[in-house]
Amino acid sequence: MPSLDICFSPELLPLFDLRGRVAVIVDILRATSSMVTALAAGVTHIVPCSELAECRALAAQGYLTAAERDGVQAEGVDLGNSPFGYLDGVVPVRGRGVAITTTNGTRALHLSLAADAVVLGAFLNLAAVASFLRRQNKDAVVVCAGWKGHFCLEDTLFGGALAERLQADFDVTASDATLAALDLWRTAQPDVAAYLLKSAHVRRLNHLEAHQDMAFCVQQDEYDIVPIWRDNQLTINNEQLTMSNEQ
Amino acid sequence: MPSLDICFSPELLPLFDLRGRVAVIVDILRATSSMVTALAAGVTHIVPCSELAECRALAAQGYLTAAERDGVQAEGVDLGNSPFGYLDGVVPVRGRGVAITTTNGTRALHLSLAADAVVLGAFLNLAAVASFLRRQNKDAVVVCAGWKGHFCLEDTLFGGALAERLQADFDVTASDATLAALDLWRTAQPDVAAYLLKSAHVRRLNHLEAHQDMAFCVQQDEYDIVPIWRDNQLTINNEQLTMSNEQ
Repeated sequence: MPSLDICFSPELLPLFDLRGRVAVIVDILRATSSMVTALAAGVTHIVPCSELAECRALAAQGYLTAAERDGVQAEGVDLGNSPFGYLDGVVPVRGRGVAITTTNGTRALHLSLAADAVVLGAFLNLAAVASFLRRQNKDAVVVCAGWKGHFCLEDTLFGGALAERLQADFDVTASDATLAALDLWRTAQPDVAAYLLKSAHVRRLNHLEAHQDMAFCVQQDEYDIVPIWRDNQLTINNEQLTMSNEQ
Repeated sequence: MPSLDICFSPELLPLFDLRGRVAVIVDILRATSSMVTALAAGVTHIVPCSELAECRALAAQGYLTAAERDGVQAEGVDLGNSPFGYLDGVVPVRGRGVAITTTNGTRALHLSLAADAVVLGAFLNLAAVASFLRRQNKDAVVVCAGWKGHFCLEDTLFGGALAERLQADFDVTASDATLAALDLWRTAQPDVAAYLLKSAHVRRLNHLEAHQDMAFCVQQDEYDIVPIWRDNQLTINNEQLTMSNEQ
């Protein structure tokens, strides 16, 4: 039985040997939630960028750009980091590539490339990620983007939720991190949004739009897609695209 | 109101600025539990060593030596890493200095020396540590020794227990790490030993002696002392010694 482990911060990644394993990158508020939403909404592929300048350079190649600074949309880009930007129709996104700056999420992803496969996880595609991992049948590690390297509750809860879904097929007891995430996930039931209102990150984002985003981002199984890292970009395969378009 | 934060692994210490703060080093199984027990039993001071060779060199200067390898007492030393070694009378310890090798605990301590004060925490001296922190009235960080850099449940539970004791006097909501530790501590109630039986570390130590040690190490408030780092050794002040000797 393969095992599911959880890495609480990119700073702890040197402790994990990702070779032969699947890495699930998670940054619930809001990078991976927004990226899953973007691809489900018909974005063709995503280039995650560490720097705003890198993002803007891709605009010249026809990319839409998405970035935030201090919780609001950055100047001179097309979209902020809210998932609603891909749904509200203000900026048409279907058929476009998007360059997105995210500090924590991009760092977690770039540090995980030794893995056999690197995919994005969010509550929005929880069931799809669980199915993907079952099909891979390899050891998996949830890589929490965290907050500037620190442990954060929302990414940990995702790890616990995934462990709960996978406990019949994966060993979810091999590490204390997974055991703790499972217990925190059970504590957060039945109202994950209410539980997260106490988190330090959510309190930092204490304004209406952020709370709407948070309520959206904790919805489970909205999108049946698994963004995967391939050729330096995040994409979903054609079969997934067809399913997504039919929805 | 000062804040109480928790650092889940020595690997995360670079994220914490310890200047002006008190660091509470915790390695429940078993380094800090054994050191608290040793000082309460009349050991005059402790030199924590990373290497067995360093420990053996101090034997020539009159130190008792304590070390384990793979869960059992190392060859050629006086004591293992069980707290019972300081209580069972087989090796007289009162009035002696002890050189102890511990991998995780020593590393956590040496990486925390930028703090204003560095003290040892264990369930055994939980109330004493809480009182010490109240008197200091400074921001404090619990530094979990963890397991080879990884998150571990038992040190985290200590952080949660300390946060619960201090919540009237300290801000225990400023970081997600402290919030998570509090919730895990509440989940572990009322039977902390039973809860820890599922932890990866305890299962690694799955033999009778280790379980006896674990049951001992989760007892709260047995010793009213706070080991403090001073002049490259761990000691308790004279007032504490007097109290300890009178017990």
